[in-house]
Amino acid sequence: MIAYAHNGHTDKFGIPRQSREESPILTRIVFEPDYRIPEALRGIEGYSHLWLLWGFSEVDSWSPTVRPPRLGGNTRMGVFATRSPYRPNPIGLSSVKLMGIENGELIVSGADVLDGTPIYDIKPYLSFSDSHPDAQNGFAEETKDRTLEVVFYPGIDQVLTRCCPRDTLVQEISYILAQDPRPAYQDDPEREYKMDYAGFTITFVVKNTTVIVKKIEKM
Amino acid sequence: MIAYAHNGHTDKFGIPRQSREESPILTRIVFEPDYRIPEALRGIEGYSHLWLLWGFSEVDSWSPTVRPPRLGGNTRMGVFATRSPYRPNPIGLSSVKLMGIENGELIVSGADVLDGTPIYDIKPYLSFSDSHPDAQNGFAEETKDRTLEVVFYPGIDQVLTRCCPRDTLVQEISYILAQDPRPAYQDDPEREYKMDYAGFTITFVVKNTTVIVKKIEKM
Repeated sequence: MIAYAHNGHTDKFGIPRQSREESPILTRIVFEPDYRIPEALRGIEGYSHLWLLWGFSEVDSWSPTVRPPRLGGNTRMGVFATRSPYRPNPIGLSSVKLMGIENGELIVSGADVLDGTPIYDIKPYLSFSDSHPDAQNGFAEETKDRTLEVVFYPGIDQVLTRCCPRDTLVQEISYILAQDPRPAYQDDPEREYKMDYAGFTITFVVKNTTVIVKKIEKM
Repeated sequence: MIAYAHNGHTDKFGIPRQSREESPILTRIVFEPDYRIPEALRGIEGYSHLWLLWGFSEVDSWSPTVRPPRLGGNTRMGVFATRSPYRPNPIGLSSVKLMGIENGELIVSGADVLDGTPIYDIKPYLSFSDSHPDAQNGFAEETKDRTLEVVFYPGIDQVLTRCCPRDTLVQEISYILAQDPRPAYQDDPEREYKMDYAGFTITFVVKNTTVIVKKIEKM
């Protein structure tokens, strides 16, 4: 372990299923004492994107086939054809945007990781070897652009006043909910879901392609 | 360890420093008995590219700064700003093209790995989350397109007749040498280098921007 990731995702529920360039979610990479060495980051500011290699927390089993949420949860695919956490060596891989370096910590956006995730390695993203914009995305292709519209009950976002500008938090929560965090594609418009994020519990329902946020409470 | 990689790179010298889409080098991924499970690959054929996470063999130390070969070997950069093997957790990351599946083995091209490299994980490449064609490449930017011209002494490529079409092997060796495998940028046009590849020992010199292959011998 060289570092730990810190962000608002204190709850697995709601973590985007893949890293995305456009994500407004910030994650802070805090190095462990043995690796808190300014020289080890020399030159990193010249890169716009980084790779994080990290450990899936709480995963200690694997299966040759898994049911990807984006296929509705009923179709089995080979584990090596998915990014599922339930793999023989549960190492996660995320490309993130480098937003800044503060006191020897890296601030990145787009990491699809839980708060407290252990980081094994950080590498620069090299466009000439890592970027294949025309790659065929197998079964993931069809569902990649599926996002929901997000609306709030009037006034309920007033509670979002933590350290940071309120607009950022509204933007973060909207982004997360737009990715449809529901397990598989459940489709009960009455069902209330609760998600913890950045110290708040968010209660919402989903009707067709719209997420309706009904309540936001301080945890 | 879920698998081992097999290819012509029996020698570290000559392994391309990064995976490259255009590489003609084929690598065969042979699963270990516990992971030789056809279902674990179900759906993988729909992807054009994969990620390999692998172990740097023979690496058991790290340093906060390293001297990237592409900077001439004299400039120190932070290890996390490089893809150097000398890292705290020596896990390699390569995007490769999936060329085929044969008897439960994956045939991929573009892997920058040594023959016998242990593979920890295989993941599908997802263009919508992994591809950033406009990423800034830090200090790696300036040197990324630096390749050499490769010429052979007349007739010496006749020895290249192993299992496979001779042209493929000429193409592979030309590709490897064009990447300039010399340690740092040594610049002695008289100096002879020897590289083992696919059962052959290749002797060459480099004059300015041209590699001259002088001898090819069966190992």
